[in-house]
Amino acid sequence: MSVKKAGVLGATGSVGQRFILLLSKHPEFEIHALGASSRSAGKKYKDAASWKQTETLPETEQDIVVQECKPEGNFLECDVVFSGLDADVAGDIEKSFVEAGLAVVSNAKNYRREKDVPLVVPIVNPEHIDVVENKVKQAVSKGGKKPGFIICISNCSTAGLVAPLKPLVEKFGPIDALTTTTLQAISGAGFSPGVSGMDILDNIVPYISGEEDKLEWETKKILGGVNAEGTEFVPIPESEMKVSAQCNRVPVIDGHTECISLRFANRPAPSVEDVKQCLREYECAASKLGCHSAPKQTIHVLDQPDRPQPRLDRDRDSGYGVSVGRIREDSLLDFKMVVLSHNTIIGAAGAGILIAEILKAKNII
Amino acid sequence: MSVKKAGVLGATGSVGQRFILLLSKHPEFEIHALGASSRSAGKKYKDAASWKQTETLPETEQDIVVQECKPEGNFLECDVVFSGLDADVAGDIEKSFVEAGLAVVSNAKNYRREKDVPLVVPIVNPEHIDVVENKVKQAVSKGGKKPGFIICISNCSTAGLVAPLKPLVEKFGPIDALTTTTLQAISGAGFSPGVSGMDILDNIVPYISGEEDKLEWETKKILGGVNAEGTEFVPIPESEMKVSAQCNRVPVIDGHTECISLRFANRPAPSVEDVKQCLREYECAASKLGCHSAPKQTIHVLDQPDRPQPRLDRDRDSGYGVSVGRIREDSLLDFKMVVLSHNTIIGAAGAGILIAEILKAKNII
Amino acid sequence: MSVKKAGVLGATGSVGQRFILLLSKHPEFEIHALGASSRSAGKKYKDAASWKQTETLPETEQDIVVQECKPEGNFLECDVVFSGLDADVAGDIEKSFVEAGLAVVSNAKNYRREKDVPLVVPIVNPEHIDVVENKVKQAVSKGGKKPGFIICISNCSTAGLVAPLKPLVEKFGPIDALTTTTLQAISGAGFSPGVSGMDILDNIVPYISGEEDKLEWETKKILGGVNAEGTEFVPIPESEMKVSAQCNRVPVIDGHTECISLRFANRPAPSVEDVKQCLREYECAASKLGCHSAPKQTIHVLDQPDRPQPRLDRDRDSGYGVSVGRIREDSLLDFKMVVLSHNTIIGAAGAGILIAEILKAKNII
Amino acid sequence: MSVKKAGVLGATGSVGQRFILLLSKHPEFEIHALGASSRSAGKKYKDAASWKQTETLPETEQDIVVQECKPEGNFLECDVVFSGLDADVAGDIEKSFVEAGLAVVSNAKNYRREKDVPLVVPIVNPEHIDVVENKVKQAVSKGGKKPGFIICISNCSTAGLVAPLKPLVEKFGPIDALTTTTLQAISGAGFSPGVSGMDILDNIVPYISGEEDKLEWETKKILGGVNAEGTEFVPIPESEMKVSAQCNRVPVIDGHTECISLRFANRPAPSVEDVKQCLREYECAASKLGCHSAPKQTIHVLDQPDRPQPRLDRDRDSGYGVSVGRIREDSLLDFKMVVLSHNTIIGAAGAGILIAEILKAKNII
Repeated sequence: MSVKKAGVLGATGSVGQRFILLLSKHPEFEIHALGASSRSAGKKYKDAASWKQTETLPETEQDIVVQECKPEGNFLECDVVFSGLDADVAGDIEKSFVEAGLAVVSNAKNYRREKDVPLVVPIVNPEHIDVVENKVKQAVSKGGKKPGFIICISNCSTAGLVAPLKPLVEKFGPIDALTTTTLQAISGAGFSPGVSGMDILDNIVPYISGEEDKLEWETKKILGGVNAEGTEFVPIPESEMKVSAQCNRVPVIDGHTECISLRFANRPAPSVEDVKQCLREYECAASKLGCHSAPKQTIHVLDQPDRPQPRLDRDRDSGYGVSVGRIREDSLLDFKMVVLSHNTIIGAAGAGILIAEILKAKNII
Repeated sequence: MSVKKAGVLGATGSVGQRFILLLSKHPEFEIHALGASSRSAGKKYKDAASWKQTETLPETEQDIVVQECKPEGNFLECDVVFSGLDADVAGDIEKSFVEAGLAVVSNAKNYRREKDVPLVVPIVNPEHIDVVENKVKQAVSKGGKKPGFIICISNCSTAGLVAPLKPLVEKFGPIDALTTTTLQAISGAGFSPGVSGMDILDNIVPYISGEEDKLEWETKKILGGVNAEGTEFVPIPESEMKVSAQCNRVPVIDGHTECISLRFANRPAPSVEDVKQCLREYECAASKLGCHSAPKQTIHVLDQPDRPQPRLDRDRDSGYGVSVGRIREDSLLDFKMVVLSHNTIIGAAGAGILIAEILKAKNII
Repeated sequence: MSVKKAGVLGATGSVGQRFILLLSKHPEFEIHALGASSRSAGKKYKDAASWKQTETLPETEQDIVVQECKPEGNFLECDVVFSGLDADVAGDIEKSFVEAGLAVVSNAKNYRREKDVPLVVPIVNPEHIDVVENKVKQAVSKGGKKPGFIICISNCSTAGLVAPLKPLVEKFGPIDALTTTTLQAISGAGFSPGVSGMDILDNIVPYISGEEDKLEWETKKILGGVNAEGTEFVPIPESEMKVSAQCNRVPVIDGHTECISLRFANRPAPSVEDVKQCLREYECAASKLGCHSAPKQTIHVLDQPDRPQPRLDRDRDSGYGVSVGRIREDSLLDFKMVVLSHNTIIGAAGAGILIAEILKAKNII
Repeated sequence: MSVKKAGVLGATGSVGQRFILLLSKHPEFEIHALGASSRSAGKKYKDAASWKQTETLPETEQDIVVQECKPEGNFLECDVVFSGLDADVAGDIEKSFVEAGLAVVSNAKNYRREKDVPLVVPIVNPEHIDVVENKVKQAVSKGGKKPGFIICISNCSTAGLVAPLKPLVEKFGPIDALTTTTLQAISGAGFSPGVSGMDILDNIVPYISGEEDKLEWETKKILGGVNAEGTEFVPIPESEMKVSAQCNRVPVIDGHTECISLRFANRPAPSVEDVKQCLREYECAASKLGCHSAPKQTIHVLDQPDRPQPRLDRDRDSGYGVSVGRIREDSLLDFKMVVLSHNTIIGAAGAGILIAEILKAKNII
């Protein structure tokens, strides 16, 4: 099996550390370049980063010398570059990497709304990658150089939300109303400073800046389609799907819980059993492609009344599977249910890795 | 000021301890009888109870000898008896107290659905006590003995929910659709065993047995009316108001947070500013009556984007005030907002005390 | 009762907020000046500070206009100035206030080691204030102006530790060996950023920078004496008392727990009952002086095997009392026990207030 | 590789679930019998147990039919039986299994003090198993049947404590004074009910019934020797080693932290560097035997000042490695350090599995 060279931007941060940890154990990728701020450049990774993961990092990775986040040096030899950069710097840096012909998979929010940039939850809408695939293949077929491109990872709370929606929409038609109240883990906020202990011990914070807006529009892009030319994304219009989100931070390390309710546009609505069966039978495209990290079971439908719970269920399929429980009828919309997803795996760095696996499986990188 | 004699049933339990703590500091009530299981009967309270409150109990109360939960002895001299009994024993015991002519204010769920039993959140629907008042006055006017009666305290998560609804309905007319997703503190589950530490550290539990059902129907009784004869309660019919609840237990000691959204039946709906002003101006009847524990400000409308938070806001007005924040338009219904209430004060024992203050102010006890 | 004018330096920070909250409810002090960084100067307090206390602040205090931390304007009219400044700026600012003739009570560590500066836990060694009193009275008796001075509040974990030691040493003679392992609440670290949620949820941090050293030497100064001239402090020498500390941060909001063991120099050692009685009978000088905030019971000796616990016992005597439990013999030294103190009250701002009450009672301010 | 048949007593409980989870992934053992109370007997395991582990159980194990805890049926075919029974029933049941000729590895405390029963921390004193080995070999050499026996797993907080002591004693001679203050995770208390959420949120409990006594005497047995006949254990006498423990429960799911200090009997004491090197070089006998679960690195010496931390370090070597940090001189004894161990792995079920691996490697089972 060929091994692809990977770079990581923002390597010392919370998301960057996750990319590195996942890559260090990955059979198909090897870390070839690590980028961080000029303060860290030139140092060995172990000296530049305050490693805060629950698994230790192999010595090989610890000794890699960090470079600046510029498209030069080892980065130019990378088959794929993962970006865990903060939004305030991601825009310019990622742009320079794409312009240098590199394939960038980014966790930053900067380019998610761009019409020609795929916003991908790899267990949900990998077909959106086709827009990039087409562009690359066209360029190559014209004898040109393989062009750079960027694929965006979704917001962490969006990933869990859309996972069960996709198979439901495929089988039962459009969802025209959707509410979600989230109970989000603190790891999504990083750790320097992230969420303060004083804010989250014996407390919840009923607000995450910008999060509700992201949840609402990202859902419509991810579940939406592509224009006839296959070049731009066409989100579901507001008039066809109302999404309403309320986001909370709760004292949980990993795992976002969402209490959702939804209504199908078509009547009669399916039964609870129909919904459960649909979710159980869903096999995501990444699994069909045989991707290394793809979940064996994309959606775990749990029948116990008090599940899913973050501590007990977040690691199903190594965090790439999504758990759904308490599927029941709703007196207002059609169904209520509880969705749990691992925010740093399928909701962030892990999603980036699986996107890259798909890119590799499709020979785009 | 006359001081009323108070009894407490279930005195060693979590709710009973709260009743006792509140009564021990109360200028209008003195503890006259404490009832617990036969295992505790005959012991001094300090020897019978494992005191788990954050305030210490005065020695006077510690030395009271506990008796069995039977309408005899000191209980017969009580002006009011507060019940913190578990549902499995509350039914028979409370009935025997009412039959003995006693005024019972109960936190148990057993009689909440009875047509002629008031279900009261004292900052919301004290007028429901009129049904009892009428009954008592009629009996007395006929020369009979003052009859016993029972008034039920609402479920803890209902209390917070209906607090802002009451003034809104009074001013803007009926609410025909309401959703709430709760993030409930663990103190509501008591402490023997209550919620296990293994279930709630780094975790949330997306289920509380029976809670969603209680939230949904209690709301309709509390916001509902009384029949023409003034003898029975008439909940809002399902066809006129849809209520949908999703209940979660979160790692918070005290304070239930609820993310709610609602729709008014009348068009056009009020503005966000109208809603805020209405809530700010609301003064509950208990405050107008000058009750000792009534909140100075019934509803605190908070403008900071990240409030209310349980640790910071639960103690407003000693837990008798309810905080509402993040009032904003909803894309699906009319408004979304976050409601915080202190579950052991306005949601349980504290509500019982304030109900008794109202009974006293109205000369019913 | 005369009311003294108080100023607060570092008013927007964690300690400053505590000073302000305590002063706002205090019958003997009124807030006359609030100082913060130039970024906050000129703003109303409510606009300058992100208020994070569990009690709301009266409007009067909210509307005070913040000034810079310079000995000018309203500060010059203050009878006492409380400093909640961070150590990196406290040194110069506090010095300038003392030089301007002001009485400064500081929570910063900068001047604690100075030979002529009292380091005071007000329920333990208020007699150390005499050194300042003498200096002030001498200056005044010579016809001079009342000189400025500074009194330092101890480190938070020192305060709890020395509270039971003082009466024991007074009664049973010197302690020559002392170990303490602390389990410290996160409020001691402030909130911007303070302890990160990722560091403290489902975790403990076995290290607090500089804390062990402070615990060890502060104990010897506080329990130590004064030179013959009454002008300088003489800590207990290392050769006479070994103190060994291990400090941990734990997921608790307020309340430092310390597992201590100690050995008396004199043989035979007292009995467990002797120790308990000694602690129970201790009445601190501040209580004898009738100071407003002085605890009714300085040390609460708890007999239940599983107490003290931070959540249940930290608020005894409004946080000015210290709880001691599990007093038992130790196989290595003489006794083991568990000490609990409220780190933001007797361990920080609250101690400052009580020190000022003593200053007022002694007519030093 | 031959696969041994394993039974589990107390299979539905907290420790039993851990045994089952570890065995389900183990290449050398297969689960052959599961025993629980008569209430569970006859049911499939998935219906009898409320599975609370963070990993799901394979279907094969879920479908095993639970039997009563009697030495009959499948249990009689087991090569080794792991006991996760509660102490109130473990005594009789385990005795009946031993009498039936079975090899029992028990987590219960009942037989730990027996003179001829090994109390084993498998990374510390596997040589204590020799006493059993001798007994078995003698019986077999005399032509008898292989006799049953029991080996006890140590208390969870003892396991972490003795891990670094063993190599230190081997290299630098006896330790004559030892103190430990523990910060213990709640998983050690099981989950029905275990530690109540109300007791452990925003709190610590400075008491664990019986724990300090266990820590103190178990240490002396584990570090002690065997009599000349090789038949009985001879703990270190009290006069030669003083151990003093203070035990606390803290809000941590897994991982016991201990702040220890110790003194060597021999002078001069080694240096800090000597101690670190000794710990780093230690390779436990189980590792030398090549046991499947034995840690690659028995003791991880961490140099960062704020480590080890339970959430970050408990899973080193899958929980079979022990982490030691903050090794420094002590002003009272010789050295202070912080020890972290995974209480349900090396401190409970995991230790049992590694003991069984040693038994297998030595052909005792």
